[in-house]
Amino acid sequence: MFNVTFLPAGKQVQVEQGENLLRAAMLAGVQFSASCGGSGSCGKCKVLVEKGEFESDVSARISAADQEKGYALACITRINSDIEVHLPEDARAIDRQAIERAMLTSVEPSELLGHIEINPSVQRIYLELPPPSLEDNVSDIDRLTRALEKQLGSKKIHLSLPLIKQASSTLRSSGWKATFTVFATDEGFEVTQVFPGHRTEPVYGLAVDIGTTTICAELVNLENGRVQAHRSDYNSQYSCGEDVISRIVYASRNRENLAHIQGLVHSTLNGLIQEMLKETGVQSQDIADVVMSGNTTMTHLFMGVEPGIREEPYVPVTSAPPVLQAGELSLEWSDSARIYLTPSRASYMGGDITAGLIGSNLFRSEKLTLYIDVGTNGEIVLGGSEWLIGCSCSAGPAFEGGAIKHGMRAATGAVEQVRIDPGTFEPMILTVGQSSPRGICGSGLIDAMAELLMAGVITSKGRFNTELDTPRIRGQEALEYVLVWAEDAQNGQDIVITEGDLDNLLRAKAAVFAGITTLLNAVGITLQDVDELLIAGGFGRYLELDKAVTIGLLPEISPDRVKYIGNGSLLGSRVMLLSRRMRQEALQVCKKMTYLELSQDPSFMDQYVSALFMPHTDMSMFPSVQASLMG
Amino acid sequence: MFNVTFLPAGKQVQVEQGENLLRAAMLAGVQFSASCGGSGSCGKCKVLVEKGEFESDVSARISAADQEKGYALACITRINSDIEVHLPEDARAIDRQAIERAMLTSVEPSELLGHIEINPSVQRIYLELPPPSLEDNVSDIDRLTRALEKQLGSKKIHLSLPLIKQASSTLRSSGWKATFTVFATDEGFEVTQVFPGHRTEPVYGLAVDIGTTTICAELVNLENGRVQAHRSDYNSQYSCGEDVISRIVYASRNRENLAHIQGLVHSTLNGLIQEMLKETGVQSQDIADVVMSGNTTMTHLFMGVEPGIREEPYVPVTSAPPVLQAGELSLEWSDSARIYLTPSRASYMGGDITAGLIGSNLFRSEKLTLYIDVGTNGEIVLGGSEWLIGCSCSAGPAFEGGAIKHGMRAATGAVEQVRIDPGTFEPMILTVGQSSPRGICGSGLIDAMAELLMAGVITSKGRFNTELDTPRIRGQEALEYVLVWAEDAQNGQDIVITEGDLDNLLRAKAAVFAGITTLLNAVGITLQDVDELLIAGGFGRYLELDKAVTIGLLPEISPDRVKYIGNGSLLGSRVMLLSRRMRQEALQVCKKMTYLELSQDPSFMDQYVSALFMPHTDMSMFPSVQASLMG
Ligand code: FES
Ligand code: FES
Repeated sequence: MFNVTFLPAGKQVQVEQGENLLRAAMLAGVQFSASCGGSGSCGKCKVLVEKGEFESDVSARISAADQEKGYALACITRINSDIEVHLPEDARAIDRQAIERAMLTSVEPSELLGHIEINPSVQRIYLELPPPSLEDNVSDIDRLTRALEKQLGSKKIHLSLPLIKQASSTLRSSGWKATFTVFATDEGFEVTQVFPGHRTEPVYGLAVDIGTTTICAELVNLENGRVQAHRSDYNSQYSCGEDVISRIVYASRNRENLAHIQGLVHSTLNGLIQEMLKETGVQSQDIADVVMSGNTTMTHLFMGVEPGIREEPYVPVTSAPPVLQAGELSLEWSDSARIYLTPSRASYMGGDITAGLIGSNLFRSEKLTLYIDVGTNGEIVLGGSEWLIGCSCSAGPAFEGGAIKHGMRAATGAVEQVRIDPGTFEPMILTVGQSSPRGICGSGLIDAMAELLMAGVITSKGRFNTELDTPRIRGQEALEYVLVWAEDAQNGQDIVITEGDLDNLLRAKAAVFAGITTLLNAVGITLQDVDELLIAGGFGRYLELDKAVTIGLLPEISPDRVKYIGNGSLLGSRVMLLSRRMRQEALQVCKKMTYLELSQDPSFMDQYVSALFMPHTDMSMFPSVQASLMG
Repeated sequence: MFNVTFLPAGKQVQVEQGENLLRAAMLAGVQFSASCGGSGSCGKCKVLVEKGEFESDVSARISAADQEKGYALACITRINSDIEVHLPEDARAIDRQAIERAMLTSVEPSELLGHIEINPSVQRIYLELPPPSLEDNVSDIDRLTRALEKQLGSKKIHLSLPLIKQASSTLRSSGWKATFTVFATDEGFEVTQVFPGHRTEPVYGLAVDIGTTTICAELVNLENGRVQAHRSDYNSQYSCGEDVISRIVYASRNRENLAHIQGLVHSTLNGLIQEMLKETGVQSQDIADVVMSGNTTMTHLFMGVEPGIREEPYVPVTSAPPVLQAGELSLEWSDSARIYLTPSRASYMGGDITAGLIGSNLFRSEKLTLYIDVGTNGEIVLGGSEWLIGCSCSAGPAFEGGAIKHGMRAATGAVEQVRIDPGTFEPMILTVGQSSPRGICGSGLIDAMAELLMAGVITSKGRFNTELDTPRIRGQEALEYVLVWAEDAQNGQDIVITEGDLDNLLRAKAAVFAGITTLLNAVGITLQDVDELLIAGGFGRYLELDKAVTIGLLPEISPDRVKYIGNGSLLGSRVMLLSRRMRQEALQVCKKMTYLELSQDPSFMDQYVSALFMPHTDMSMFPSVQASLMG
């Protein structure tokens, strides 16, 4: 970790080697112009490095002479030592009592789970069997299972008819030396693959998060637990509807639609896997196990089952699907690969949450933990090793950039971090991929909203302050704030945040926060009692906790009690891939959890109305935010 | 039972209502000419009924005037009361100390098993589930399994993905009232079928014996245990080879052959089932379970697996196949029907024998029992509830009519019973279906050989006595006995038994008997120690025990200790269909049984040579036969 000091104010921040200097400035609460999204093309982020080592990319916006003198464009500069930076003329430190900031970065499972035992559901076993003789003339399959029983310590070894044929002919033609893949079932073991001779290639697994928006997959070496490759892509079901409900409607129309929407998720997955195989040189037949987590709708559509959860009483078809074989589905994988779908607690508390509770280690935590996964739905779970209670609230698509004028997913060009100068009301932005801005994604919207609030551009109810003298606020009836001028934007149009957008965001955050407080009330505790807050979800790496707290989306809790686990669904999938015991735990988690149906809870609407205010009507829950706003 | 008295000798016999009068005469040891196979066309079996009731078919060979006087053709006459019959002029009683005869008829399983508990692997369960509500919003499948767990007392209820889809959509569209078929597995239960509403049709099963020559099937109502229909047909694999070895050779040539020979047995089965469904009006989807027993080769070919048992060390691919689904195979049944293949002990001790040991109740008998199944192979098992030992010897095809000049299977026109007048050397024959003779089947050959021996036509070594003055014995180097003259035969040619035929039969019986004695010697006991002899096999209804004893094929044991169980494979299949516990017993039987490899037993060849004599070189084992031959 290096110290970065911003002069003249002397603000300091600690960052990792290679951290971007503009991000460091944002982290330190230092404000200057930066309007090109960090693409190095506006030249406004020029700083003077007084001490320390750094390296910069090439840009036409800074002269060789300036570089000689030590100037650099912060957005294309990486920090390589302790460093002291002098801010440009127009820069001024934000004079605000800072909430201690928690930059959210995803954690390694081992950090959360301690030592994960590597004991996957599949394993490869090489056997040299004694050839049959008149003295030892048991059948081929008895000969095989006898040896496997010995190795595995189980009497229950099963082979399906196709495997019986394959095992027998392989053993006979390879001198009774062959490698077998076995899969641990509830009852014993199932032989799923046979290879002649000694197959030394490791056996691999896939951890998959099937999200409504994005599908993420990791290719994991099951012998050493390492992630060999990872890929993600948009869920191509997008073409059938953006959200869960519209996809259910599409799928329920007729059999062809159901088959089509199922095929779309399969083809997305097929693509991801092909890329990872190409990258690593792993052969598809060495992927023997898949753990897949998703919300109930995604899981059902993956199986080609109509979810049936659109209307009250929101009952899904199945909450704990059987282990499938790739060959049962239209997947271009090795037919014998097993697919475990993480069980779900309720229609709107899916396998992705179960996986998150496993991956985050919450299920065996001694601490009273609050788990929050914010996306289209906000799923909230409270508890630990003893008990669990959860609920789900519909936040709508705002946090995923939906129903927002210039909202977009966290793709290249999406504004993901925002600072607004409380004096000039000028913004400072960073985009995904640091390319020129195209729109605003979830974390950018939360940042913008919090900054607009802190800068006094909007009120606690999300209305623009029309008194301010800045061209960035404009419009008559429909007011809006211009975040990026057309000249800096990728498509040559202003990127704005409207009052309608603010309204949608406010309602979304109110739904989530009302869920949290309803859940806490249900068990009679307050935020003070919570030992740990775990944040999961698809906000990307750069959601800053304090911004989410500022608008009242997340509760104010001491940052040392907060962890961001990133994609909990993927994390848990990997953990269950590596340890088959964790799959049993997953089922226990579902059984143990009490599910609170918010639509049936009379206090939820009151909580919701109280939360339609930033950060909250009851400001005592947000003492630091209150202090900042006052200050 | 009615008494039949044959005058003038006064021989008596007891028969059932409707018994054929010619069979009754044979049973009584009464001898007269009867050369048309019982088809009513030679007119030689004319008798005078002096007392009692009978009915006769119409024949041109008997005049109305004769009928008025009370004459009848025995072969087309059925006995309806106690009756007294005067024999025709040429008839004379065989003056021989008769071995007490055991006419072999198959027994009902209940006779052997006592009360069979009807507790099949499949059952139908009608459920009226509470519709989902917000208070009770578990998934469809959880709702279903919750109810099934309650009914079945098991936590392990499994549904495959297709069944999940079907169960959910059926429940939702039928007001949560549906009927389920569940199949008991080792671990719990599997749901295999779903029907909307209350399906009141009983659930059925099939018991199947897949023999090398014949396939027999029974359609069994699994609710009351009754056989609703039964059918048998030649195994159409016959076109690929008559015996097991030639079919293995055919199947091993290439994949197409294997698929073809598998398809043949499937098509034979499909045909049988279609006929039974047509006869009974049962719907194919109500057949939910199948128990199938056969020798190892038949079982493997049914699964489409190359048996691989042709050469030393005779190792099959599998001895206990997994439960299959009809849908996995090219069977035109309801895809969801489960198929249980009875496990086998060894390559030449197949599931048909396991089934016989279950069906005959030997596996839990307190008596020391000898079980013999004679066909192309003779399988012999000795033991009871405590221990079992078995062996298998190749008898060759003679007992099935193969390698015999006029041998044939037990089809219409096959001579199945024979008597030879020890004075005139004239035969008396009955054919299957009482139609004009076409050839000789297994039981006919055994009868003929025994009768030729008793009449002194052949020696104990199976050579013809050329001293006798009868046109029936003819030929120079190659001697033969004419059993049917061309004029009475269906195809207008003499039907003969050659010395070569006798030789083949002698070797076949010697192999079986040597197996029996080798097995007895292996455990150090003699025939006197055997409490019960069970005979199974495909000889048809009319193999007479004393004839098989006379030639030394079967040991001489007091007839009250002998039971003929007929098709033991089919019998056991039915028992395992009705009681799932019996399937576990079948596996135990295989585990418990010691298998003696005769080719590895040095004493076997000695035993074989000693048995190449009728009844045996050691005549002390056959005291009654010895007395008859002397007398
Ligand atoms: S050049 Fe750095 S923000 Fe534009
Ligand atoms: S007519 Fe009776 S046997 Fe020929």
